[in-house]
This record gives sequence, C-alpha cells and structure tokens, in this order.
Amino acid sequence: MTQLIRVGIVGYGNLGRGVVQAISQNPDMTLIAVFTRRDPNQMEAEVGIKFEHISAAEKYIGEIDVMILCGGSATDLPEQTPQLAAMFNTVDSFDTHAKIPEFFEAVDQAAKQGKTLSVISTGWDPGLFSLNRLLTESILPVGDEYTFWGKGVSQGHSDAIRRVPGVKAGVQYTVPIESVIDRIRSGETPELETRDKHLRQCFVVAEEGADQEQIRQTIVSMPNYFADYETTVTFITEEELKTEHHGMPHGGFVIRSGITGHKTKQIIEFGLKLESNPEFTASVLVAYARAAVRLHNDGAVGAKTVFDIPFGLLSPKSAAELRKELL
Amino acid sequence: MTQLIRVGIVGYGNLGRGVVQAISQNPDMTLIAVFTRRDPNQMEAEVGIKFEHISAAEKYIGEIDVMILCGGSATDLPEQTPQLAAMFNTVDSFDTHAKIPEFFEAVDQAAKQGKTLSVISTGWDPGLFSLNRLLTESILPVGDEYTFWGKGVSQGHSDAIRRVPGVKAGVQYTVPIESVIDRIRSGETPELETRDKHLRQCFVVAEEGADQEQIRQTIVSMPNYFADYETTVTFITEEELKTEHHGMPHGGFVIRSGITGHKTKQIIEFGLKLESNPEFTASVLVAYARAAVRLHNDGAVGAKTVFDIPFGLLSPKSAAELRKELL
Repeated sequence: MTQLIRVGIVGYGNLGRGVVQAISQNPDMTLIAVFTRRDPNQMEAEVGIKFEHISAAEKYIGEIDVMILCGGSATDLPEQTPQLAAMFNTVDSFDTHAKIPEFFEAVDQAAKQGKTLSVISTGWDPGLFSLNRLLTESILPVGDEYTFWGKGVSQGHSDAIRRVPGVKAGVQYTVPIESVIDRIRSGETPELETRDKHLRQCFVVAEEGADQEQIRQTIVSMPNYFADYETTVTFITEEELKTEHHGMPHGGFVIRSGITGHKTKQIIEFGLKLESNPEFTASVLVAYARAAVRLHNDGAVGAKTVFDIPFGLLSPKSAAELRKELL
Repeated sequence: MTQLIRVGIVGYGNLGRGVVQAISQNPDMTLIAVFTRRDPNQMEAEVGIKFEHISAAEKYIGEIDVMILCGGSATDLPEQTPQLAAMFNTVDSFDTHAKIPEFFEAVDQAAKQGKTLSVISTGWDPGLFSLNRLLTESILPVGDEYTFWGKGVSQGHSDAIRRVPGVKAGVQYTVPIESVIDRIRSGETPELETRDKHLRQCFVVAEEGADQEQIRQTIVSMPNYFADYETTVTFITEEELKTEHHGMPHGGFVIRSGITGHKTKQIIEFGLKLESNPEFTASVLVAYARAAVRLHNDGAVGAKTVFDIPFGLLSPKSAAELRKELL
C-alpha cells in the first residue's frame, strides 16, 4: 500500500466544505487540517476536523503534500496562491479568465522558487470546459465552438438584484435557451453572443410596500447585467426563496460543430448537470490535487494548468490498470 | 515559423483517405507519402499524393516525423505497429479492447528499442470515450458509468447479415434507446447490459425469390449478434441501399451519474454525432500525431495511450496562447 496523500484545505466556505466531503470519497487521501482566517478555536467544535489559523500553515511544511485553496478569485487567491505555493504544492480554482496569464506568472515564479508544483484555475469553467474547448478545437480545427452556462445561479447577477432599492432578497438563474442548443445540435452554426444563448430568470423578494413594477423596470434595464438579455422577474415570498431556491445547481454545455472532408458535419458535446456547483468543483480540485502530488513526485515544479496534465494522473489506478479497464 | 510536421500514412482505405483530408486542415503538417501493400504505380494517377510500397518505408527514416497507421485491428496493426515503431514515431487506432494490454507491451518494446514514441489505440472508442470514462470516474468516484453507441453502422453485424442465405446486401445500425438515455440523464442509475441500451436496425436487400420471413427469422434469432436484442429487419431495394445507406455515420454517449456530499446528484455527459466515423477518427489520429512528435522531441520514448498525453500537446498553439484563449 502506498502512502496516503496528505491534504490541507485553505478556506472553509461552500467550496472548502465540499473538499472535505470529496476527500472522504477518495481512500488514498487524508485530510490533515483546514486553515482559516477565523479563530480556529471557535470552529473546532463544529465538526471532527482540525482547524488552524492560516498563519500556522508554515509549521506544516513536510506534513502536507498538497494544499487545496478554496478562497475567492477577486482578492483571496491572487494573494494566497503565490504565498502558499512557495511552501506547498497547491491546487486552486482561480476563475477570472482575463487575469489568468498574470496569475499564472506570479504563481509560476513562487512555485519554481519553492520547488513546488501548483495547478491553477481548475474546476469546470475554467477546467473541464476549457479541456473540451481545447480538445475539440484540436480535433476539428475547422468549426465553431459554443459554450452555454446553466441552468445555474450567478452570484454576480444575484448581487446586482439585491442592490436594487426595494429588494429584500433575490436570486438570478442563467438559463441556456433550449431552442438555440437544438439548432446547434442539429448542425447549424449561427454567430451568437452570450445574450443570444441565455435567458436571465430573477426571483425577487420585495420589501413591504415596495413598487414591484419599478423594481422590475430597474432590473430589466440594468446595463451590462440585464439590459441586453431576455430577463424575467418573478416576485416570491421569503419563505419560497428559502425552500425553493436554497440549492446551488449549475451546469452547461460546450459544443463544437466542425467540418471534415467535403462538408461532413461532426458534432462533439460535453455537458454538466450539477445539483451542487461547489461540491462538484471541489471534486475536480481533489482529483487535480492527486495529479499535483504525482507530478511533483516525478520532479516537476512550477505552475501548471489542466492543459498540462495527462488524465492518467487523476486516477488512483495504475497506468496498466487504466489501459486494461478503461481504454 | 517552426518546421512542418512530416507525416506518413500506412494504409489507404476509408481511414487513410480521412487522414489525407485531415492533414489538409492542419497547416503545421505536410503529407510526405502514403504507404500501401498494393502496387503504388497503379495508385499514383488517382490523386495528387505520393504512393510508396510499404516495403519502402525504411528509406524514409529521418524524412518522416510520424507514421499514422490506418490498417485494421484484426491482422494489420498487431504486425505493422511494432514493425514501424522500430523505425518511426507512430499513431494507431487499435481497437480490440481485450487485447490492448498485450498490444501495448509489444509496441512499447519495439518503440523503446527504436527510441521512438508510439501512441496506440486512439480515435473515439478507444480514445475520446476512454478519456471521458477516466476523467469522470476520477472526479466522481461514487457513481455509475454508461456508454451508448450509435446511431451508427456496425461492420461486424452488417457482415453477419450478409452471410444469411438469400441476402444480397445489407447494413446494420446500432441505435441507442432514447428512453433509457433520458432515464439516466434525469438521475436514475439502473443496472443495464449492452442489450438494454441499444436496438439493432437491419436494412436488407433480398435476392430475387428469397423467403423474406425466413431471412428475418434467421437474423433476429442469430446468437451473440441479434438474439438478445430488440432487432428490426426492413427489406429495401438495392437502389435504396445505395442512396440512403451509403454514409458512415456514428456516435454515442458516455454518461457518468455520480453522487457527492449527501446524495447530491452530479451528471457528466460526453457525446458525439458524426456524419463520418472514419473521417472523425482520422481527425483524432492527426491531433495525436502532433502530440507524438512533440513528446518525442521532449525526449519521451515507448508506447503511450491517450491517458498519458496532456491536451496541450494536441494543439499547434503555444501553452501561453492556450492559457489566454481557451482556459
């Protein structure tokens, strides 16, 4: 029996909780500690997990094989990933697409100095969707690619709703337009903007006495967020919000419609239907944590992305087992 | 500008022709020659391609970066891949699942002796479907996997039909059962045999005066091929066979239905809808030919499968471009 992979988690929100659960599904891994900015003594009672203040991470050098970073992309990861990559192998889900190149450079430098390995920007988009965009473009260089997101909650759009005067609470779902998906599945290759592919469904709890028609107007005419989209606003009670909109479902599709030979249509589709976005993202992070440790054991250092990692490293099975069972 | 990848093709059936077309879609590649067991002088006139007898391959050592092997798995590849791997980097689509481990060993030995690199068993199944089985099992270790094939022509079953007395010609389509796919997409995880997931549709041209009911009975009761399946037999004219059944469509789905956390359902689906099976397989071989050359340039030798190869190597784009454009 090979040694267990010793995992640390940084951050204990929805994603960090998902990682704890995912580790329990992978018998080759063990959770050493969860690092948090909160007071670890106040958390200890919560569950059977060892909590440490994030400032204590350094003491765990040599005792943790990989740190799974579960902070946000806006402020946490740009600071935490380079810091921790100097000491540990890391995996994160940095998802600000436009800033990935500079993030990569910062982490790459830190990891090379620390002789560690960091997998950045994994999860499902960036992550599995990116892998499919790359795979399908490489196989069908003549073609068009379509990414659809949803049905799922968009945090940014939900926040925007909640800033509207008279709104007490609310949630926004991004919904791919089924008829557009069907056109592409049947071989059409229309030019589409994001707004042509998605609806926005808003469920809003209004404050008592608030003007619902005015709230609706403010939402549907909000630039960048809603003005360009087909947007519906449905007013619901606080109770309905709690019971019917507490989940974090998400998903989507990457479809490539390509041409080979003489106008031969070839369509590749990858899709996700997730009841919990953070639990699924956590499961992806955990598989890539295994790959990070193995790559590092093989002598690799620096920042890596999903594009650099063969799938064989994601599985606890040996290469010979994989060839026999799954090829 | 980096140097063009110089490609050779061995075998000039449907797959070999598909590879010629796929190379023309990839500007970083150039076709050097097609090697065949037939008389190359008789083929020269056919198209603007250089044909060589397969016995002349050795003369091309140093002039071809990768050989794409387009022979069959039954007798061609078990002989050709080890032979050619001793001299060239190779890519093939060996698809006899049960014999992959011994095929891998034979090719690995030849390639290591020749200091070359061979990617075996790529295409879509084995190939892209295998990649998805591995990826999704690694991410969702608690779950069930379903592979559906079709709608597509099965050569083996079409041959079986044609051996029935009174049958002049015929073709068999394997068709996934839509209602079963829908059950799995909606989260059910039934235990299913291949026969529970697929129908078999036979289109038969009977010889003049043949007993159609007897032909139908012989087909639907044929052990291994049809007896266990829901099978339909439709009699058509030779003309209809030519006009409506000349294509080689295929496709299918790999669906994993998994659980995270406390009974949270997570579904991952990968699907192909192909108007031409050989042209698509050829396109996959060509992308992996690029990866084979790059891996070899980095010093790797021996046999590899799709599980060993990071997707980044499939694309002509640089790692930095890929991170910026596709992650």
